[in-house]
Order: sequence, then structure tokens, then C-alpha cells
Amino acid sequence: MKLHSPLDPDFLSRVRENFAKQQVMNLLEARLIHLAPGECAIALPYRENLTQQHGYFHAGITATIADSAGGYAAFTLFPPRSNVLSVEFKINLIAPANGEMITAHARVVKHGRTLTVVEFDVFVLRDGEEHRCAIGLQTVMCVPEKEKAVVVQ
Amino acid sequence: MKLHSPLDPDFLSRVRENFAKQQVMNLLEARLIHLAPGECAIALPYRENLTQQHGYFHAGITATIADSAGGYAAFTLFPPRSNVLSVEFKINLIAPANGEMITAHARVVKHGRTLTVVEFDVFVLRDGEEHRCAIGLQTVMCVPEKEKAVVVQ
Amino acid sequence: MKLHSPLDPDFLSRVRENFAKQQVMNLLEARLIHLAPGECAIALPYRENLTQQHGYFHAGITATIADSAGGYAAFTLFPPRSNVLSVEFKINLIAPANGEMITAHARVVKHGRTLTVVEFDVFVLRDGEEHRCAIGLQTVMCVPEKEKAVVVQ
Amino acid sequence: MKLHSPLDPDFLSRVRENFAKQQVMNLLEARLIHLAPGECAIALPYRENLTQQHGYFHAGITATIADSAGGYAAFTLFPPRSNVLSVEFKINLIAPANGEMITAHARVVKHGRTLTVVEFDVFVLRDGEEHRCAIGLQTVMCVPEKEKAVVVQ
Repeated sequence: MKLHSPLDPDFLSRVRENFAKQQVMNLLEARLIHLAPGECAIALPYRENLTQQHGYFHAGITATIADSAGGYAAFTLFPPRSNVLSVEFKINLIAPANGEMITAHARVVKHGRTLTVVEFDVFVLRDGEEHRCAIGLQTVMCVPEKEKAVVVQ
Repeated sequence: MKLHSPLDPDFLSRVRENFAKQQVMNLLEARLIHLAPGECAIALPYRENLTQQHGYFHAGITATIADSAGGYAAFTLFPPRSNVLSVEFKINLIAPANGEMITAHARVVKHGRTLTVVEFDVFVLRDGEEHRCAIGLQTVMCVPEKEKAVVVQ
Repeated sequence: MKLHSPLDPDFLSRVRENFAKQQVMNLLEARLIHLAPGECAIALPYRENLTQQHGYFHAGITATIADSAGGYAAFTLFPPRSNVLSVEFKINLIAPANGEMITAHARVVKHGRTLTVVEFDVFVLRDGEEHRCAIGLQTVMCVPEKEKAVVVQ
Repeated sequence: MKLHSPLDPDFLSRVRENFAKQQVMNLLEARLIHLAPGECAIALPYRENLTQQHGYFHAGITATIADSAGGYAAFTLFPPRSNVLSVEFKINLIAPANGEMITAHARVVKHGRTLTVVEFDVFVLRDGEEHRCAIGLQTVMCVPEKEKAVVVQ
């Protein structure tokens, strides 16, 4: 497995500041639990108001932390003064997200100047054991700060 | 375009009851705004705590209402005493979800006994005009009530 | 529905020349049957050596003409002296591709400077009637000619 | 990593017979190079008539061997007297498939009674070195032999 070298020595603080600006992470009470070059993990404890009709984590909430984990895994490798955009993602819900916490782990598969491809897994913690409940792939775009995301996308 | 005939004459109340059980819809303040055989739309007004780092709706929140709209579009066609599971979905975020409200519109493309395929669009309302901000495809599974979702999936 | 304006007045000949270079289209005996700004359709007559284990068109062959149709639908809108790259696609095989011909129809959903999103449908002709057998979404990249695709991607 | 136990002791010969019926594999000159419970790999040597406009393997051809490898990875775990259907797949083309051979490696991520989820990687061999050129996810369906695929899907 290829190791990634960050272009920005301050990538940790840059990602943490960006995460703090995602107000939805605060609403959900999601926490950034791992950051490394090309990697990110986000954890989300169970609350009743995050659930679908069976009382499990809603697929969209699972996707929300997976999308952010994927975006930040890519963002660790971006140059200073750049923005991150999620272009698209695909997620398979492979088991019910039935448990006390879900954790999304994302890893960069291919880092390019413009596009970065990320894979992610989501695990649910139940009775002290983690079970994989989702798997996905995401395409992320690097947008230099001066450019308008609207124009470039 | 083929019209869909619901197998369950009470599909409207069945979907509405199910939607009311999705507690995350209540947290987000999402509303069911359209139901017809093979169709569903869900609207979500803007709030700061639904946003990503630029103050737009987070891609995962966009995906959350799209996933539910897709699941319910399929569910309108399911027989009585059945459950709905989201197997997988793919979403392209084609423009910033920057506006006062987003609305996910889902339509059944192919209804099968076990699997139903749904397409969806998400529009953002900005200054009185709707702009498409996302498009996606979803695979949904019908699970007869007596079976365990865990086993079948 | 928004109409697309091509940036290159010679887009028709540019796409046709590019199509002629895709040698696999010749192997499969696929034909370009429709071109318009933001649109492309490709048809593929049945042959036994294009089939999977049940004698239907193989899903990958269906995907092959869909991927080319999507790339060319985007390419009609690209500026002169640019290349087209398929970044990713997702396809749902919604019915057996069992018939005398399949036809992939692709339409641009969102045209951006760098990325273009395309939707496609594939129909199979059987006993004089067309049935939709696949549906998908694709992300396509525009690469200016002087840049190296390898670097940019 | 969880190991998979095949339900059918004769899974190897069953998969090989099925592969031999996929006539398109013969047209492409693709070869089954690895089979184990939950795993399959298919290799495809370079030929000019498999290429897109730059002389690389066409994305659809890459997808064709990936789709078959994924279907057979799942099929190794199916019970005797069952059929395999590709429900959907998503593929990211992460580098040009520029080389002497491509090889698709598929692994089952989750095996269910009805649906099985598979991940795959495609590598291209160039100057004696393998480079990953594509990555994807696939949903595969198990259809008991007596049922009609058309009805079930």
C-alpha cells in the first residue's frame, strides 16, 4: 500500500478548522477521531433522533459522516489555500446500523491534482463488537481558493 | 412513461405512518410534500445547523432526504405487511445546495418483486427559483414482514 | 429542460472522428446513431459472442456502449482541442438485455468547465418493442489537449 | 477478515462451466485466473481492438471483466442450482488502463441469502509492474434455479 505525503505541513489544523465549520457535525454530535495523510475517521454516538423507522441509524446519517470522512481524507493531501468539494459518492448499506455508535473510516485510493478517489467503510458498535454496516466510494475535487466552486464544478 | 399501480389501497397512510417513525426527519424538520404511486417528494427548509463549511446544505443531508424520498417512492408500490430497505444509492452533487430549501423528488424506474430501482433529483430554492443540485439512483428492497431484515439482506 | 450550446461549431465531426478511433466499437460493431449538443446514442446489434451465460447481452457490453455514449454526449459540449475522460459511472441492470439490439441514450445533466455529469438509459429491442434494460449516471472530465491526462486525472 | 465457506462443494466446477458459457469472455480472450470462496480474478491481455481513442483498454472493457469477476466471486458462495444476476455496479477509472494486460480482482464484502455485495480492483500490467487503474462496488443477486430471473428481479 502506497503511503501519502501531505503537500501542506499544517494539514491537521486546516482539517480540524474546516470540520469545526461543518455545523451539521455539531447538530449530529459527530466527532473527528482520526486524521493522518490520506485518512480520516468520524464517530457518531447513537441518539433516537438520528434513526429511521426501525430505530437504527438512518442510511442518510450514515452517509453524512462517510461523506465528511471521505472529504477530509482527501483534504489532508490538498495544498494550502484550497477547498474540498464532494463530487459524488456511492454507498452500499450492507447490514442494519443497529448499535451504540457508528464510525466511518475513509482512505484515499488515488490522489490527483484535481480529483481524488476515496473508499470508506462504516462500522456499527453493538455489545462491544464492531460490525461493518456500509461500504462506499467517493470522488472529491480540489478547488484552488481564488476560483469559485460554482464555476469550476 | 409507464404508470404504476399500487398493490396496497392504503399505501398513502402506510407511507405517512412510516415517515412519522423516521425520527431523523423530525430532527431535520423535513416534510413529506408529495406522494403518488411510485413517487415521493420531501422538502427541507434551510437551517444553519444543516450546513457544511461554506454554509450550504451538507451533501449527506441532501442524501438523507433523497434516500428517504427514494425509499418511500418504492414503498408506495409494496404489498401490505412489508418493509422497505435501502440497499445502495449513488448521488452526484452537481451544484452547491445554496438556498432557502431543498426538495428531493424520487420516481420508481423499475418495480420488481424483490428489488425496486428509483431515480431522484434534488432541487435547491434560491431567490424564488429552483436549481437542480443533485441527481442519483437507488436500489430498494422489499422485505415481507415476517422475515427478518437481517437474514434476508 | 435546459438546452445546451456547443462551444465548438465543429463538434459533430470532432465526435465522429473520435468515435472512429475507439477500436472496440468496431470489434463490437457498435454504431453512432444520434448526436446533438449534450446528447449521444449508440446502437449495438445482437451477436452470440457478446453474451453472458443466458445468451443475453453481457452487462459489461451494455456498460461499454453506455460509457461511450455518455462520454460523447459530454464531448459535444467541450471546447476544440480538448480530450474526454470517463471518471466514473454507475449502472443498474433493471431487466435482462434479451433481444435483437441494444441502444444506449445519454444526455448531459450538468456541464461544467472541468466535470460534466451525464445520465443514460439503455433499451433492448425485442419483437419490435423497446424495453429499458439499464439506467446509469456518469462523471466525465474535460482535459485541455496540452495537458497530460495522467497528470490531470 | 472473515473467511467465506461455500455452500456448494462443487463450486469450482460450477463457476468454470458458467464462465465457459459467457461467450463474450471468449471474444475478448479473457481468462479465469483465480477462484476461491468469495474471490475471483479475470485477466485480459491487450489487443488493439479492445481500445478507446488513446489506445488504452476501453473503460467498458475494464468494467466487463470486473463485472464478471464480481459476479463469480459471489457465485462461489451460492447454493447448488442457483443463478447469478448483476444488479448494479459502480466503477471509478482512477488511472489510464495503458499496458499489456488488465486483471480484475473481486472479493465478497457481504454475502446474504438474496443479495451479495462485492468490491473489485482492476490492475494494469505495464513494463513488468502492476498499477491499479479502477476500483468498484457491485451488488449481485442469487436467483434459485426454478424461479424466472425476469420475475424475481
